[in-house]
Amino acid sequence: MARLDSFYLPPQGWGQAGAGQGVELQDAEARHLSQVLRHGPGDTVRLFDGQGREGLFRVESVSRDRAGLTALSVTTLPRPAGLTLALGFNKAARRDWLLEKAVELGATGIVFWQAKRSQGQVPDVPKQSWLDKMAQAAKQCGAVWLPDLAVLPDGASGLARLAPGFSARLLPWEVRDGLPLLGQGDFKEDTILALGPEGGMDQSEAARLSDSGFRAVSLGRSLLRWETAALLCLGLAHMARETAAAGALS
Amino acid sequence: MARLDSFYLPPQGWGQAGAGQGVELQDAEARHLSQVLRHGPGDTVRLFDGQGREGLFRVESVSRDRAGLTALSVTTLPRPAGLTLALGFNKAARRDWLLEKAVELGATGIVFWQAKRSQGQVPDVPKQSWLDKMAQAAKQCGAVWLPDLAVLPDGASGLARLAPGFSARLLPWEVRDGLPLLGQGDFKEDTILALGPEGGMDQSEAARLSDSGFRAVSLGRSLLRWETAALLCLGLAHMARETAAAGALS
Repeated sequence: MARLDSFYLPPQGWGQAGAGQGVELQDAEARHLSQVLRHGPGDTVRLFDGQGREGLFRVESVSRDRAGLTALSVTTLPRPAGLTLALGFNKAARRDWLLEKAVELGATGIVFWQAKRSQGQVPDVPKQSWLDKMAQAAKQCGAVWLPDLAVLPDGASGLARLAPGFSARLLPWEVRDGLPLLGQGDFKEDTILALGPEGGMDQSEAARLSDSGFRAVSLGRSLLRWETAALLCLGLAHMARETAAAGALS
Repeated sequence: MARLDSFYLPPQGWGQAGAGQGVELQDAEARHLSQVLRHGPGDTVRLFDGQGREGLFRVESVSRDRAGLTALSVTTLPRPAGLTLALGFNKAARRDWLLEKAVELGATGIVFWQAKRSQGQVPDVPKQSWLDKMAQAAKQCGAVWLPDLAVLPDGASGLARLAPGFSARLLPWEVRDGLPLLGQGDFKEDTILALGPEGGMDQSEAARLSDSGFRAVSLGRSLLRWETAALLCLGLAHMARETAAAGALS
């Protein structure tokens, strides 16, 4: 359904949506539908909730900040197991861009943790603007799932607390000898992978994660920027997931 | 040497630089040295030429737009074989960003080709600003090689002409059934990989490349943006090269 124009309707807006049920888009999404993409009554569009639910809807009415639609069909897709990327928080301008790529490459979760070398303070809860950014990315690439967003103000301790919930825990390094290279086989069904902020992880943080079962792997001999290392890991996880899916089908 | 402040001195500025020889940084690089990073006579810095040559230099003198330095040691590293990425040209703001990542991930070459769906016209020669962008990236990550830049105004025909010079030719697709997934093993010593512009390759272009020995491979089931597909391929090539290097050492 990726070729139809897509609009994001948060999970709470769907009710028990099945065929025939009415829903309403509001504000920015409604204006995007009627004023930017010029849809009107009778048009068919795609809505998604970022939690695996998507559907075909018929536009019934549009006003300035509202659009009424009726469901033609609704399906729910299971969440594919994948990568949760735990990133040392940065105020970096490239964070938005990374959220977009995490959607395209199918990350299961993004956790921003407060590292000793973090620039800025991670907020108490994930920002609405991060979700908005991800929803925009999903509209463009047709993803039905958005990564779960979480924040960890208590840093490496918080990561250590999360660790047991995953079947694999990875701690990638660059420019460090004697470590096995990160490969597709390292990505298990539920994997958490921890990266530091720009400037790297503090030694005590790395030790804490190592004690919590995070296994050190190498990203090679190049010195990579924060977002490049994150992208590289997202890309490898994407190919690992695609390889597993192809194997399951054949 | 990555921890020393690095400055880019183009190949023509090096003369026969060996220990004891004097060189001169000019303009932006000189101002960066003296005014931004506040180096003065006696300091040791790193210079590189983007063609495998780097050296330790002692600052001798600084003026407004010039810095004189003397070589302490100069080494030349061989170019590692790797990936030449042929990208359908786009006016996209993200092109600069992609050039930066190509340096970090050690691409051998970047070719912008004029595709039917390209936005804008590829220039007759690579722009100086592209080289500048890559030099900045190399300063940050310590790379000694910059990717070779080329432009192909004659599109797929130009790519077909380049193809025989490579030991592997790859044509990645997304969201297409029945193709083998791109894997690290697909990257041979000298590989050219062709991607379309944002919006994709035209059917006739794909057929032309296929006739020229480009082998279709899959990037999986997600619809990826131009720069995401490019990044994914750069990342896989990086890990393939690191894997080969680790194998050669062990």
